[in-house]
Formats: sequence, C-alpha cells, structure tokens
Amino acid sequence: MRQAGMSDRDRKQRFQRGPQKGPDSGRDQGHGRDNGQSRPGRDQGRRSPRRGRDSGGSGGDGPAILYGWHPVTLALANPNRTIRKLWLTENAARRLAEENIDTRVTPELVRPDMIDRRLGPDAVHQGMLAEVDPLEAPDLSDLPQDGMVLVLDQITDPHNVGAILRSAAAFKVNAVITTNRHSPEATGVLAKSASGALELVPIIAVPNLARALNELNDQGFMTVGLDSEGGENISAVPLSAPLALVLGAEGQGLRRLTRETCSVVARLDMPGEIKSLNVSNAAVLALYIGASKLGLMS
Amino acid sequence: MRQAGMSDRDRKQRFQRGPQKGPDSGRDQGHGRDNGQSRPGRDQGRRSPRRGRDSGGSGGDGPAILYGWHPVTLALANPNRTIRKLWLTENAARRLAEENIDTRVTPELVRPDMIDRRLGPDAVHQGMLAEVDPLEAPDLSDLPQDGMVLVLDQITDPHNVGAILRSAAAFKVNAVITTNRHSPEATGVLAKSASGALELVPIIAVPNLARALNELNDQGFMTVGLDSEGGENISAVPLSAPLALVLGAEGQGLRRLTRETCSVVARLDMPGEIKSLNVSNAAVLALYIGASKLGLMS
Repeated sequence: MRQAGMSDRDRKQRFQRGPQKGPDSGRDQGHGRDNGQSRPGRDQGRRSPRRGRDSGGSGGDGPAILYGWHPVTLALANPNRTIRKLWLTENAARRLAEENIDTRVTPELVRPDMIDRRLGPDAVHQGMLAEVDPLEAPDLSDLPQDGMVLVLDQITDPHNVGAILRSAAAFKVNAVITTNRHSPEATGVLAKSASGALELVPIIAVPNLARALNELNDQGFMTVGLDSEGGENISAVPLSAPLALVLGAEGQGLRRLTRETCSVVARLDMPGEIKSLNVSNAAVLALYIGASKLGLMS
Repeated sequence: MRQAGMSDRDRKQRFQRGPQKGPDSGRDQGHGRDNGQSRPGRDQGRRSPRRGRDSGGSGGDGPAILYGWHPVTLALANPNRTIRKLWLTENAARRLAEENIDTRVTPELVRPDMIDRRLGPDAVHQGMLAEVDPLEAPDLSDLPQDGMVLVLDQITDPHNVGAILRSAAAFKVNAVITTNRHSPEATGVLAKSASGALELVPIIAVPNLARALNELNDQGFMTVGLDSEGGENISAVPLSAPLALVLGAEGQGLRRLTRETCSVVARLDMPGEIKSLNVSNAAVLALYIGASKLGLMS
C-alpha cells in the first residue's frame, strides 16, 4: 500500500512454474519505487481472460500441483476441480478416511520422502500431493454487481499472492484479477499459502490491466488504487459497492496506466516511522477497511 | 488470528540461525490447531530478557547479518547498532555515496556473486551485506505506559516475524515481545522482511511468556489474546492503553497458559468461508484495530 521513495536496484525476480523445487524465489520484498513510468512494451495483448487452462498464472500448460491438508482437501471438495493424481502417505490416507473425505480418485500410497523429493525439503505437505487441472476462470462481465474484487498489478511473489488469496476468501471477495504475465502460477507454493482459497476465489488473469479496469469502471465499479502517493487518505474516502481494490507490487507500486485508470488513488496514513507494509499486509488492511465501509463485517 | 479446527500433522519446523542459506523454511503455513494444551516442559526457565547479546532470537552468539537497502541503511543510521563489517558492490557503494550515507566502517568492495554465495541465490541483497552486533533489548519494566506492544507466542517463520516487525514499526508499537526459544533470530531473512524495522522496534525475548504477560498485567497493560475461539469479537471489545496484543502461531494458536494469562481473548469475525489468516496478516489487522481504537491513527 505504501512504497518508500527509494529504488530497489539489483532486484531479482523469477517467475515460477509448476511444482516448486525450492519454496521461495522472487519475493516481493523490495519496496522502493523504481519509477512510476508506464512500460509501453508490456500488456499490449488483446484481452483474453486466461492462457491455456490456467486461471492464475503466467502461462503453464501442465497440471497444477496442490499439497498440504487445506489445499488438497478443499480441492477434493470442489466439484469443479478435476483431480488427476493423488499421492498420500499412510498417515494422510488414514486421516482422510477418519474424516470421511472422498478422495475421488484412487490414491497412490507413497512414502513422505517421495513427496519431499518432488517438492523440495521445506514444503509442508502433510503427506498429501495432488495433480489437478487448473480451474476455469469467469469473465469480467460475469462479476456480481456488489461486494468487492481485488486487483493485483504484477505482484510476483507466490507466498504473498497466496496469502492475499487466503485473505480474499476470508473477506468474501468475488474475484481476484491479475495480469497473466508477471503473476505467479496458481500452483505449488502459491496454492499452499492460499490454504484452500484457490477453490473459493476465482482468479481472472487478464493481458491488459488498464483495459480490465476500464471495463470495471464501465460496469459501475468504484476502482480504488492504493498507493503511498495517493491524494486521499483511504479512511476519508466514501467507498461504495461494487468496489475494486487495486494493489501494486512493493518494488514498483501501481504502474502509471493502472493509477490513471483508477477512479480514486488513496493512501493509508500510519503513525509510525515505516510507511510501507508487506504487500499481503497492505492487502488485508485494504480488504478490512473496504469490508467495514461496505457493511460486510457485521 | 483465526485457526481452523484441523490439525497439521507432519508439520515441519526449522529454526534458522545466522545468514540464510536458502530463503525459506518452517513457514507458519499450517493453520490447524493441534491442541490447546500447555507443554509443561517448555518455558520453565527464569526470566531473563535476552540470551547473549541477541535480542530477537533463539540464541545465536555470532554477529547478525543484514542485507538489502533498508536493513543496511537503517542500521548505518542507528547509533546504537555496532557495524562489524560492510560488504558493498560498486553499484551499492556509489548509491550510498550519492545519498550521502556514512558507512561508518571502511566497506569491502565485492562482486555481487560473493554476496550471492554467502546468502544463497534468492536473497534480494541489492549489493549490500553488513555484519552487525545484535541490539540490546530493554527490560519489560522500561516499557512506556501508553500505546501498544505486540506479543508473539512462538511464531517461528522468519518471513512472517519480519513482516510483523515491519507492521509494528508502521503502527508505532513500543516493543515486540517474543519467547527466546521457538522464535527466529533477528538476522538474515527476518531482518530483510522487517525492512529496517529492527532498528526501530525493540525486541524483548523472554524465557517465559506467561510470566511476562503477568508482569504486563501488573503494570496495567490490557493484554488481549487473539484466537478463533475467543469469547468476544474484537470489534466489540473496548480497548485501552497501554495495550498488549498477543498472537499465536498459525499451527498452534495461543498456548493454554498464554490464553489464560490474557485479560481478554478475542476473535475477529470475517464474512468469508476461510476463517484463518496468515499470521502476519492477522497481526497487521490487530494492529490497525488497536491503533484505531486507541486514537493513534489520526
């Protein structure tokens, strides 16, 4: 929500695909602002809500990988989710049986280290790994005309995007809209951090975010960008439904065209010396403030 | 803030010390509740606010490692921070010179890959690495009798604790109180995620959290535990300063003794299907609600 006025040179980014080897890369931990300039080479494609069958990412064609209790059990409970393969340890299989959870496909019983080898040693997989098809995404024009959507402008770190999806599900967001480039895949670490939220919150990946925001504006959404240099304090902005909250990456903030397409650009004033939050922390605050002002918290 | 009612078996934890080889391990991503039972074998030591000279962690004796623009420049600006060694790339040295930042020690000019080799390839170090002494921590009895402190009950993931410290600095928290076991070191990934907040928010690591909470209660603090099974909705609780907000790990929640020592245990009701947030997301919401109710946001 707030970016400090310093640039993050030597910033690294890596876009992850498929199962995570190591659980981390390209975290959105930089939080200077390199520039507020548009990058005309990007986002010039025509609108098409998804690439291939993947609704959440940067264009992988393979299956999505889900691991851990919540991601896997919520996928098993989601009739729209096609399960291709299910690896379970004996403990995990027993636990699913104890809780009367239908595995839908015949699980392969494996040793924990087989899952470790596939995911890397740091993944908290709890003895469960599923290969699934990515979910189909709705179209922007299908969004309900009430409540909130969240728009992510090139937030790349899968832990942060996963945590944001989890918060989006907690605050009953109708959809999360991302760019189909410079966004992480809806798989692996992102799915784990989302803790099952992938099954609950549709992700709409668009090629051109400004065009998508214009479409939301045309549909009557109030589009509110969050930025440290926003002209108004969000606490003082009268928010109305349908509401789109728009967040940029910590290193870059909102791109110029994104900012210009929002109906309001607002900042959050905080009392301390640090004026910038981790992006998932900024997102959950925005959601809480939005939900409170829209009367969704009662 | 909210934990789902499922257990996280096969949960992995690793406690990191010194410079991070890989940027991630033991993330607090599980969020079931294994049990609410106390663990009598733990936290039996006598109160002693820090071990060795490290104020934030699980007992390392070596220097703390800081890397990246904000952690290093805020350390250089902190007269209480002793700088032992400073590695800079040429670019980073030029940038410090451009911004007239005093390096305090003679920097060693290094190639970026030397820092990469020390931190692992995924660390966003921006050409800067400092070896520093841990900061001295204040005593609980030195805390101001106003504002807020944040208490972390065995939150282990350094990314989450770092993000929490950053939010604590943004909301002007007077101190973060942790357990000296089962908390990550104030170094490496934690320092990077904290984005300079280590220089702004004192960390008080205590051997026995219930005893520390009792001391806060005796000092007149309102001690508010956050828990999905809390009896009251935090929105309905009249909060008063000095306020201590107490958060547990996602996998475990508040330990029984922690919960019993808080003056109030409160939950946050959210409108969506997921009832559990990432712990740093829960922390920033608690801080925002606390700061708003204490009149610190205006």
